[in-house]
This record gives sequence, structure tokens and C-alpha cells, in this order.
Amino acid sequence: MSPFSGGGFGGIIPLMASLIEPRILKGFRDFLPASEIGRRSLVERIEASFRLYGFVPIDTPALEYAEILLGKGGGETEKQIYRFADNGGRDVALRFDLTVPFARFLAEHRADLPFPFKRYHIAKVWRGENTQRGRYREFTQCDFDCVGSDSAAADFEILLMMKNTFSAIGVENITIRINHRGLFNRFLDRIGCRDKSAEILRVVDKLAKTGRDAALAALTGIAGAESAARVLAYTEAAGGFEETLAVLEEAAGGPSPESERLSLIRRFMDDTGTSSSFVLDPSIARGLDYYTGVVYETFIDEIPEIGSVCSGGRYDNLVGLYSKEKFSGVGASIGLDRLIAALEALGKGRPRGAYARAVIACADEESGGAYQALAEKFRKRGAACEVFPEAKKLVQQFALAEKKGAEFVIIPGEAPLSGKLALREISGRQNRENLDFEEVLEIITGGPQ
Amino acid sequence: MSPFSGGGFGGIIPLMASLIEPRILKGFRDFLPASEIGRRSLVERIEASFRLYGFVPIDTPALEYAEILLGKGGGETEKQIYRFADNGGRDVALRFDLTVPFARFLAEHRADLPFPFKRYHIAKVWRGENTQRGRYREFTQCDFDCVGSDSAAADFEILLMMKNTFSAIGVENITIRINHRGLFNRFLDRIGCRDKSAEILRVVDKLAKTGRDAALAALTGIAGAESAARVLAYTEAAGGFEETLAVLEEAAGGPSPESERLSLIRRFMDDTGTSSSFVLDPSIARGLDYYTGVVYETFIDEIPEIGSVCSGGRYDNLVGLYSKEKFSGVGASIGLDRLIAALEALGKGRPRGAYARAVIACADEESGGAYQALAEKFRKRGAACEVFPEAKKLVQQFALAEKKGAEFVIIPGEAPLSGKLALREISGRQNRENLDFEEVLEIITGGPQ
Repeated sequence: MSPFSGGGFGGIIPLMASLIEPRILKGFRDFLPASEIGRRSLVERIEASFRLYGFVPIDTPALEYAEILLGKGGGETEKQIYRFADNGGRDVALRFDLTVPFARFLAEHRADLPFPFKRYHIAKVWRGENTQRGRYREFTQCDFDCVGSDSAAADFEILLMMKNTFSAIGVENITIRINHRGLFNRFLDRIGCRDKSAEILRVVDKLAKTGRDAALAALTGIAGAESAARVLAYTEAAGGFEETLAVLEEAAGGPSPESERLSLIRRFMDDTGTSSSFVLDPSIARGLDYYTGVVYETFIDEIPEIGSVCSGGRYDNLVGLYSKEKFSGVGASIGLDRLIAALEALGKGRPRGAYARAVIACADEESGGAYQALAEKFRKRGAACEVFPEAKKLVQQFALAEKKGAEFVIIPGEAPLSGKLALREISGRQNRENLDFEEVLEIITGGPQ
Repeated sequence: MSPFSGGGFGGIIPLMASLIEPRILKGFRDFLPASEIGRRSLVERIEASFRLYGFVPIDTPALEYAEILLGKGGGETEKQIYRFADNGGRDVALRFDLTVPFARFLAEHRADLPFPFKRYHIAKVWRGENTQRGRYREFTQCDFDCVGSDSAAADFEILLMMKNTFSAIGVENITIRINHRGLFNRFLDRIGCRDKSAEILRVVDKLAKTGRDAALAALTGIAGAESAARVLAYTEAAGGFEETLAVLEEAAGGPSPESERLSLIRRFMDDTGTSSSFVLDPSIARGLDYYTGVVYETFIDEIPEIGSVCSGGRYDNLVGLYSKEKFSGVGASIGLDRLIAALEALGKGRPRGAYARAVIACADEESGGAYQALAEKFRKRGAACEVFPEAKKLVQQFALAEKKGAEFVIIPGEAPLSGKLALREISGRQNRENLDFEEVLEIITGGPQ
């Protein structure tokens, strides 16, 4: 219960004539315990993985000056943003991603941060998008970046951390598809299409969706038939990493810092025994203009059709809106909602309604203190233990325990602390009698039943 | 890096003539790693404690229909709320506490929840308050409630969980001051002042701030001199729990369900050996109208002057705005920002800049893969390990490691994976040479240096 000074809420109740329908905004969600426990468990495992790599968390305000979030333009972004005037007349907006606030954060705190700065940020963002495509208006982003080092080591660390983070959440078989935006631009330069880079990238980015013929037509419209064919041939280079790299390098006019960067990243993959998770794929474009180096998307091998679950790349001027100083960085983002959908599709997202595997049944309400004292003995040994407060019929308490997702009901006798205990195994519908505390502890903290 | 379709942000950069000043709204905060790690560590320990009691998390939208959050009235609340029309013309607002959304949540999902329902919710809330009193406009609330059981066991469980949660975060010496709103109302009934209950409670709630004389004057204005004196005498009853309870019971006209409830709660304290943490204090009022049973506030013994760090109580009709069904519940709320200030005052809030105690120095950028392979060996053994990507001078790498909050720098030789390692202890400014992997692992995972 949180106090709100002046008490608008409490004071209103007696005056109410009619009820207000309890409902939430379209595109927003409540998370009931089973789904919230699952979400937290996922976030906890992701964070634990990031921390192993020395990445540290930051947080920024949900609400910022609209000017900061939108720049001085706006365009498409503006239509989808939650923007309003606050009580002080300030033009404010809810953040629509974690990238723009991070750019502002870097510019504002650059003197206090240790570079290369490796941070993660897991937080909600808001967009007033059309909800019909299964999109939400409030959703969770999970971003991680290393800023302040334009090195192959930093590029590779993000890729390695991606691979191992998926492993940490139980997804072993992924393919991370990599490309190099700078190498592609070098190629476009060579065929005289560098000035059409942004338009061409947008077509390539949609290649998988539109299909080859539509892409060729669109590219022909942009760059003419000959260049269009060459662009398409470039994006279709395939084979082993080195083989593909040799083709792209050749198409871009021979060895370059960009092809050497890819070659070094490839060597790092071998050094860490992770090569089999990575593919060099020149059709990976990433539509965002700010990428300048490696770009990548992550596909789950069993269900590639759901699309990339983790994407990112290198950028050389993230903070340009707010500072003349250049910050080169590399990072990626996991869309938590799509990932959860993916885990459910893989049968790995089993909802769990409870942290406590055991509850203590109540036979006598005056023994509430003794039940809690017994529960404390379990809790001190690390076993979460819920206590039921009311002396309902045992069958009702068994049913409630099951509804809560517990696995065991502990049934104390007349001397809860010192006497023998009975134990109900919920799934097996079996009771065991005359157990010691230690026996019960062993059972309720043991492996899955 | 999070993609935003249509790319407003990236596309703007080249058009920018002047820079935008990086700044945040007044009353809002960025959290840099050292403070964010501290906040997360605190929340993690609080959550771990809640989970031991079988409490489960939920989450609700940041943005709701204004009608839901404000009821049909508004009053003081409305002036402080972030309320606006969204792009679809809906009248929406950011949540200003977690209580009102929880009431709406209970009404909406009552058919799907197991009662008694024990939930916690730790999340940000927003209020456009005056920031001059050291208040923030975005802050974190931590609420926990048990709804659906009007029992002494449920009352007591919240109290026990409060005590042990403070213990879990390193605050052993707290005093939880308890009162019973219903018993006080019974007393007011007896002296003929029941109809002035809300006004009287507001005066009592401010007693400690205004002082005795001002309170007496205010009470006299409300209820006349004789009743005012009796009310003040009631709130000043002091002594041991039983002694005070006897005085209050007598003043309220003899034994009642309310005094028996307090008596049973007192017995539960004895049963769990926690009596010394609780005081029966009839001056605890809690200004909020919705409380109907026990109410309590928590003070840290070393620094009681900072005020209550965890407050709450029992209510019998939280959901009245949205449902005819009654939900009796009991709960409390921790204001995370005040708690953090308290921990800092106690010298317990040491900021920590890093999760990784060790970093691997870079001597040769082409060995980035081998450094990562070495780091993976440490990570697989549970030791977080950052890898530096650039071959700067060792003294610069030592300085960066220190700035990041690391304790050790691992210096690999020419064969990072198989060869001997050197180790720099940052605080002692000492190097050790010729160490095996296992020796280094033992040192960097050992106790504090």
C-alpha cells in the first residue's frame, strides 16, 4: 500500500455512485504472476550473462524533453510517440527506444564514464503504434553496447556475448548472420552507386520479404539494370565465411580495412571455438542509417521464420545530435517480447506460478505464529515456503496450493516446530506421514518430482 | 542498438545545423553504473526475501486511463499527475502509485488469481510534485500485499516479512510501530467522536511534527476540549505491548475483536522470537482513509529522524471503485529512494562500479580471440571477467581498470590460454608473476582483498 499525500483515492470511495469498469489501454498489458515470473527469470539469466562480461547497468528517465528524443525533425517517429505538455508547460515525451536516451546519456556524462564503456539497459519503452500486427504499445527492450573502441575485439565481444547469452537462456542453436556496412559501401563506390546507398540498403533489407524479382525491379529503378544486377549478385554471395569474404573483398576492389576487420573477427571465432554459430551474409542490411561497420541479426535455427531475435552493429557517430565529440560503438538489442514468443514456440517458456515449492497448511488459526516459526526454519535453509493463514478444509488448501503452482503441502501436527510433519505431494496426490524437518527439507529442495 | 522503423533518428543527423543540449527534466534522474548496481543489488535482496515467503511479482502498465487512476473525482491528486490525451484522443495518465493499479488489477483478474493472493510489485511511478523538498518526479515504489484473508496470520506475516527483509538488506535494528485503526474508531465511538474520525486521524498523523500543543488546539477545534484531551491521552499510552494494549482496550470499552486481533498478533511475535522489534504505538495513524485495521510504520533505530522507511496496514475495501466484491487485504510499501538514502546514512550503501572483479589486459590486438577464450574459462567457473579491447600502455589499462571498479588486472603472456599469467592487484599496486589459471581463479574469486 503506497501512501499518496492528500489522499484523492481513498477519499473518493464513499462518494461513488457507479463503478468504473476495470480495463487497460489497448496495446498495454498486465502481467500475472506466472508470466511475470517467467519474464523475470529470463531477464535475470540475461543479466547474469552480461555481468560475466563486465557489462554494467544504467537507467535513464522514462520521460524526456521531446526535443531530446525527436531531434529537431520528427517525421515518422513523431506520429508514434507519446508526447505532451507537462504541468509546467514543457514539451515532453515517453522514450520510444533506449538508443536515443543512451546517446543523450553519453553526451551528458562523458566526463564521468570509463571508456570503453560497456553498458546494458533493460527497460520499458512506449510507441503508439498500430496494435493490429501483434505489436504492443508498451514493451521491454534489452540493449547492450560497448562505446569508445573501434576495434575488432569490441565487435567480436558483442557477438560472443550474444551467442553465450542465448546459450545461458537455453537456446543453443542459433545462427548470427554478419555483414559489414562499410564494405558494402566500398562496393557501391566502386560501381558508382555510393550516393544511393540509403535507398539501396532499404531494398536489400526487405529482400527476404519481397523476393528476388521485386528487389531487382526496385534496384533497377534506383540504379539502372546493370548496377542492380551487380548489387543483387553481391548480396547473394554465399558459402563458407572465408570463401564469401573473398568474393566480397574482390567485388569491393580488393583488401581493405573493412575486409581485414571481418577476417580478424573470423579468426577470433576460431580462437574461441564459436565459428559454427556465425555466417557471413551480405544480404544483411539493417535499415538504420547510423550503422557504419559490422551489422548482424540472430536467428534461432529451429524457428528462423520468426525473424531476428537480436540485432545490432557498429556506428561511428551515435551522439552527433548532442556533442561534437565522436563516439564509436558497437552493440545489439534483444526484443524481449519476441524472444519470449520464440521460447514459447520452442517449448522452453513454461510458465511457473510460484517461487515457493512448498506451503504450510493451516489447521488452527491460533497457531499462526508457530507455523511462521516453522516456515522460518525452512527459509533460513534457503527453501521458500508460503504459510496459509486460514484453517480451511485440507482439500481446499491442497487445491489452492496447486492453483498457486506449489508442489508440496507441509501439514504440521499439534507441535509444528518440534513434532513430526506430514507432506502432501501435489502432482502425485500422495501423503507421507511422520517425517522429520530434515526429511521434509530434503524432499522440498530436491530435484523436480 | 534498437531499431526504430522508419528511422527518424538516424536520418536527422546529417541535417543538423546546431547541437541539442543534452539534459534531463527536473526531478528525473540518470543512474550511472555505480548507483544502478547498488539499486539493483538492493532490489534483488528485497525480492529474494519476498520470494522466500511465497510472494509473487506482477506488473501493470505505466500508462492507464485517467479515469481508472483518478476515479471520477481528482482533487489534489490531479494537480500532480502526468495526464494527457494520447494520439487516439484517449484521456490517459502515468501511474502515480502502485496501489490504484493493483486495485484495478484485482478487480479485472479476480477470477484468475489464487486467494489469498500474495503479490509484490517493484516499479517506477511518476508525480509532478514540487521538487524542492528533495522529492523526485520519477521514483521507485516497492509494494507487497496479501489480499483475500482478514486474519491475524496475514497481518503478522506482512510484519514478519518486513522485519526479515530489513535484516536481509543488512539493517538489523528496526522498530515497527503498530496501531489498530479499528480499535481507535471504537474508542472514538465511545467518546462520541466517530463522525470526526478522518479529521482527528489527520491531526494525530501529524502529532510528531506539529507537537503536543498544536495538536491539542486542533483537536479541541474539531471535538471540544474534553474529547481532545481524551484523544491525546489515548495516543500517548505507552509501555510494553500488553500494558499499552490493556490501556487501549479499556479506553475503547473493553475486549473487542480488534483488541483480540492485536493480542493474537502479539502472541505470534513471541512464537517467532521477534517481539523486540515491535512496539504498540497508538499515535501511529497513517493519514490514508482506506485503512481499517492494523497500521504500522518502520523506523531504523540508528536514524529514526529520517521517518518511516516502510509503512502500511489493513484495508477492507481496496477495490470499491471497480467492483462490488469486497477484497480485504494487508500490505506495506517501501520507498526505495528514502531507503537508499537511509542505507547511505548508515554507511551501508557503498557504490560499486563493476560486477567484474577482474579484467584481462590487452597486449596485442590480434590476440583478442585468445583473450576472450581465456576469459571464457574464468566465466565458465563463475568469475566475471572483462576483456580490454585495445593495446594501450599497461599503466593506462591499470588506471582504466581502477576507474571501472575492478580489483585485478590479469596480464596474459604470449600464449594466453596455455601459458603462465601475471596478476596486478589494483589497490595494493602489486604484481604477481608466473601464476597458473587455477591460482588466478582462486585469487579473483576469493574474499575481499
